[in-house]
Amino acid sequence: MPQDPEDPAQLSTAHRVALLSRDDRIFHVVLAQQFDREFIEELCRLAEMIRSIAEARQGAQFLRTLLGHKRAMLYFIQPSTRTFLSFTAACQVLGMPHNEVRNPSTSSEVKGETEDDTIRVLSQYFDLIIMRHPEEGFAEQMAHMLNRMRRTIPLINGGSGKDQHPTQALLDIYTLLRSLGRPAQEGARPIFSPDPLKGKTIAFVGDLQRGRTVRSLAYLLCRFPGVRMLFVSAPELQIGEDIIEYIERHSIEHEIHDDLRAVIDQCDAVYMTRLQDEWDRDGESRSIDYSSYTITYEMAERFKPGMVIMHPLPRRHEIDKRLDNTPHARYWAQVRNGMWMRAAMIASIFNVDARIIDHYHSYYAR
Amino acid sequence: MPQDPEDPAQLSTAHRVALLSRDDRIFHVVLAQQFDREFIEELCRLAEMIRSIAEARQGAQFLRTLLGHKRAMLYFIQPSTRTFLSFTAACQVLGMPHNEVRNPSTSSEVKGETEDDTIRVLSQYFDLIIMRHPEEGFAEQMAHMLNRMRRTIPLINGGSGKDQHPTQALLDIYTLLRSLGRPAQEGARPIFSPDPLKGKTIAFVGDLQRGRTVRSLAYLLCRFPGVRMLFVSAPELQIGEDIIEYIERHSIEHEIHDDLRAVIDQCDAVYMTRLQDEWDRDGESRSIDYSSYTITYEMAERFKPGMVIMHPLPRRHEIDKRLDNTPHARYWAQVRNGMWMRAAMIASIFNVDARIIDHYHSYYAR
Amino acid sequence: MPQDPEDPAQLSTAHRVALLSRDDRIFHVVLAQQFDREFIEELCRLAEMIRSIAEARQGAQFLRTLLGHKRAMLYFIQPSTRTFLSFTAACQVLGMPHNEVRNPSTSSEVKGETEDDTIRVLSQYFDLIIMRHPEEGFAEQMAHMLNRMRRTIPLINGGSGKDQHPTQALLDIYTLLRSLGRPAQEGARPIFSPDPLKGKTIAFVGDLQRGRTVRSLAYLLCRFPGVRMLFVSAPELQIGEDIIEYIERHSIEHEIHDDLRAVIDQCDAVYMTRLQDEWDRDGESRSIDYSSYTITYEMAERFKPGMVIMHPLPRRHEIDKRLDNTPHARYWAQVRNGMWMRAAMIASIFNVDARIIDHYHSYYAR
Repeated sequence: MPQDPEDPAQLSTAHRVALLSRDDRIFHVVLAQQFDREFIEELCRLAEMIRSIAEARQGAQFLRTLLGHKRAMLYFIQPSTRTFLSFTAACQVLGMPHNEVRNPSTSSEVKGETEDDTIRVLSQYFDLIIMRHPEEGFAEQMAHMLNRMRRTIPLINGGSGKDQHPTQALLDIYTLLRSLGRPAQEGARPIFSPDPLKGKTIAFVGDLQRGRTVRSLAYLLCRFPGVRMLFVSAPELQIGEDIIEYIERHSIEHEIHDDLRAVIDQCDAVYMTRLQDEWDRDGESRSIDYSSYTITYEMAERFKPGMVIMHPLPRRHEIDKRLDNTPHARYWAQVRNGMWMRAAMIASIFNVDARIIDHYHSYYAR
Repeated sequence: MPQDPEDPAQLSTAHRVALLSRDDRIFHVVLAQQFDREFIEELCRLAEMIRSIAEARQGAQFLRTLLGHKRAMLYFIQPSTRTFLSFTAACQVLGMPHNEVRNPSTSSEVKGETEDDTIRVLSQYFDLIIMRHPEEGFAEQMAHMLNRMRRTIPLINGGSGKDQHPTQALLDIYTLLRSLGRPAQEGARPIFSPDPLKGKTIAFVGDLQRGRTVRSLAYLLCRFPGVRMLFVSAPELQIGEDIIEYIERHSIEHEIHDDLRAVIDQCDAVYMTRLQDEWDRDGESRSIDYSSYTITYEMAERFKPGMVIMHPLPRRHEIDKRLDNTPHARYWAQVRNGMWMRAAMIASIFNVDARIIDHYHSYYAR
Repeated sequence: MPQDPEDPAQLSTAHRVALLSRDDRIFHVVLAQQFDREFIEELCRLAEMIRSIAEARQGAQFLRTLLGHKRAMLYFIQPSTRTFLSFTAACQVLGMPHNEVRNPSTSSEVKGETEDDTIRVLSQYFDLIIMRHPEEGFAEQMAHMLNRMRRTIPLINGGSGKDQHPTQALLDIYTLLRSLGRPAQEGARPIFSPDPLKGKTIAFVGDLQRGRTVRSLAYLLCRFPGVRMLFVSAPELQIGEDIIEYIERHSIEHEIHDDLRAVIDQCDAVYMTRLQDEWDRDGESRSIDYSSYTITYEMAERFKPGMVIMHPLPRRHEIDKRLDNTPHARYWAQVRNGMWMRAAMIASIFNVDARIIDHYHSYYAR
C-alpha cells in the first residue's frame, strides 16, 4: 500500500505502463520517483536479508541458485568502474551470468547501426538490460521500446546523463536507514525503526547541480516525512529548482546554505560530493573555493555523536583522509551496501524475493 | 549418412583431418561446406530442443550443468558485438565458463609474439577456441596447427575475412526451417517438414560480393535440392563466380537480378544485407543506388502470405522500419535463433547432445 | 616446518603481518621470498591433485563447487594476456566468479580518484584481489593498506614492475619438479623425489636483469640446496647483484656466463627469456648480439637426455621453432602448469585445500 498515493499519479499513464509489469510489480527501474515508501523499505529489508544469508557459505551457495537460468547485459556506454562492478557483483551474488557492452567502438555501431537496433538485438540474448548512458531520458525511452517488442525484458537505469541514478539513491537510503534507523531483528525479519529518518537532518554538500545522485536521493527522501534537508553549495552549483519544487510539494523541511562550517553541528548525515568539472562548458567552476564544501578532521569535535559521512565516490579532496578510519566514515560501507541493494532489486524484478525471505526465515526464525 | 556424398570428397584429405575427430564426428567448425544435410537438420532439431528446455527454470538449470567442466576462449580480433554476444550467451546457456581476447593491443603481441604462439598458449587454458579474424583462411590454418599439438582442442570459426561465417549460415538455415518448414512435434522429437525448402524461392539482396554470410548460406542451401535462389544486386556487388559455380555443380535453380522490385512477389524469403563499404578500396560503392536493394512498406501488398524478411544485422536503411512490427520481420527472431543454434553446435562438439535429447524426451514424450 | 628458518626472519615484522594471516597461514602473496620449502612442495602437490581431479568430468564439477561463494577481482593495469587468462582460468577451475579492471581509462581514475581509493572500493565488492601493476612495491603497499581496512581481503601479486612475479616462479618450480623430480603416486598422494633438484644444473639465459620471472625463480630455487644455477647473459643484461648476494647467502652453487653454447651440455634445464627492450631507456640493448642467448636445433645433439627447455613466454626468436615438437620443449606445458598452480594457490588462501586432498584420497586411495 503506497504511503504517498499522490505521487504515482504524477507519473503519466505511459510511465506507469512502462515501469510496472501487468501484475503491478516493479518491472523497469528508470526513475527514483517511481518508488513508494513501502517498496523502498521492502527493498532495504530484502538487502539486509541477502547480506545476512551471504555470510554463510551455505547461504551464499543458495543465493547463487536463484538466477542461474537468466542472463544480464550491462550496457555501459559511459565510463564507470564502481557502478559497473557493483552490478556485476550483484549478478554474481545471485548466480546470474552477465555480459557487457562498454566501448561502443568495438560494437556494430561502427557499421552504422542505430542504438535502438542495438538494444533490440541485446534483448534477444539477455533477460535483463542494465544501462548507463550519457543521454538523459534514454533509459526511459528504451524501456518504452522494449515494451513494444514481442519479447519484453526489464531494464534498470544505472545512471543517465546529469539526471537520474535511481539505484544509487536506493543504496544511499539503505545506508541512511542502516546508520540512523537502528536495524533490529524482530522474530524472523530484519526491521528498521518505524520512522527512521524523522527529525533527522541530512546535508548535501558540494556540486549539487550536476550530481545526479543527489537529485535522485532527494526524490526518495520525500517519501520520509519529518526529514530535514540542507543543500550546502556555491550558488552556481546549487540544487535544481525542479527538485526544490518537488520537495516543497511534499512539505519537506529544507534550507539552502553556502558553507558547511555553518551547519556541520546540526547534521545527522553529511552527503559529500566532488566537483563535477567534466560537465564544465568553459571552466566556469575553476573559480569556486571548494574549501567551504570540504569536511575536515578539525570539524570532528563539532560532529553530533553518531553522525555519518557519506559520499557516492569517487572523491577528490572534499573529505579529509584522517576521517577515513573514524566510525563516522560510511563511504566504504556505502559501496558494499550498493551491491546488496542491487542484488535485492534484481531479485525483486525476477520475483525470487519470496524465496529469499523463506530461506531467511528458515535460518533466522526462532 | 550424408545426403550429398559427393561433397565431402571435395574437401581435401587435409581438410577432413582438420575438421573431423577420429570417430568422424564434427570437431572443428571452419567452413560451411563441411556440413551435410543430415548434420544440418540434426543441429536444427537440437537447437529446437534446447530452446524448449530452456523455457522452464528447471530445464535452464539442467542445461547449465552440461559444460561447467569446460572453458571457452573467444578470440575475437575483428570488431563484433552480435556474434560475440551470441556465442557468450550460448556458452552461458550450457553453463560453460568463457573468456575473451578482443583487443590485441592489450595482448602479448605488443611484446613481439606471433599469433600462432598466442593460439598455442590459449589452447593450454581452454577447451574450445571460438575465433573471429580478419584474415581469410586463418581459422582453418589454426585448426590444422591445433591438430598437431599434444593437447588438441576444437575451434569454431566465428567469421573470417570476407570469406566464411559458417555459424551464421547455420542459424539462417534454422530460421528458414522454422519459418517455412512448419516445425512440429512428433512423438518425443521436434521435426520439420520432410523437404522444408522444396519449391521455395529465397532472394539474397544487396551487397552479395562482400557479405560472407550470404556466401556461407548459399553453400548450405545447396544441401536442399528444390530450393530456388535469386541474387539481387548491383552488378558491381554481385555474388562471386565461385559460388555460382558451386550452385550449378549442385544443380540448384538460381537467377541473377538487379532490382528487388522486379521479383518481390515471387519470394518466400528475402535475405537483406547492408552495403559493406568498410571493404571499399576507393569509395567505389558510393555511386550505387541502394534503393533497388531496399525493402519498403509499400511493397508489403505484393508480399506472398507468410513471406519472411531476414537480415544478418546490423542494418542501415535497407529495411523500412515500418516493417519491424509486421509478422514478416524475422530479423530479431533470427538473432535469438543464433544463440540456440550456437549452443546446439557447442553441445554437439562436446558430445552432450545425447543428454539433451534424453532430457527432452523425458519431458516431452507422451 | 620451514626448511630455511633463517629466511622468514629476513622479512621485517611489517612484512610478516602483511603476508600472513593470524593463524600463520599464507594470506597475501606478494614476494617469492615469503615461501618456505615446505609450502612450495605442498602447493606443487596440491596443483598435481587438482590437475588429476579435473581430468574427470565429476572431478571438474567437484572443483567448481569450492569457491562459488567468493568473488575475485583481477586488477591488471599492465598489459598481459597470459597471466591474466591463467588466473581467470584458475578461478573458473574453482568455480569462483571473477571480474576485471584492465584499462584505467574506463575507470574512475579519470574522475581524479587515487589508486588507493580504487583498491579500497574494490575490496568492498570482492573477496580476493589479483593485481598486476607497473610500479614496484605497489602490491605490497596495498596488502598493508588492506590489512588496515575493517574488511580485510587477500591480495595476490600477479607481477609488479621489473621486480617480482611470485606466481610465475611457483609455476616454474612446479614445472621443474614435474620434469626433473619424477612425480609418483605414493598411497593416496602424489609425491616428488625427496630432493628433486639436487645435483641439477639450471641455466637462465637472456635478459636476466629486467626479467622479473628470473629474479623470482632464483629466490625460490634457494630453497633447494644442491641445485646449481648458471646465469648466461650479456654483461649489460646480467642478473642483479642483489640476487647474487641472496644466492651466496644461501650457499647455492652458481656461475656467470656469456654464451649458451659454452654450457649447453651441462644443463638439466634451460630457462630461456626474451630481450625486454620495452624497458630500454635509449635503445641500449640494440647493440647486443642475441645469438649467444638463443637455443638452436643444431644444439640438440649436445643436450643431456631428458633436458628441458622452459620459457615464461612470449618468446621472439630465442628458441628455434624446430624444437617445439621435441620432448625437450616444456613451454606449452609450463603454461598449463601455471593454471593448476594458480588454482592451488587460491584454494590454499581460502582454506579449501583440505577438501581437495580429501576428494583426491577418496578417489585415488588404494
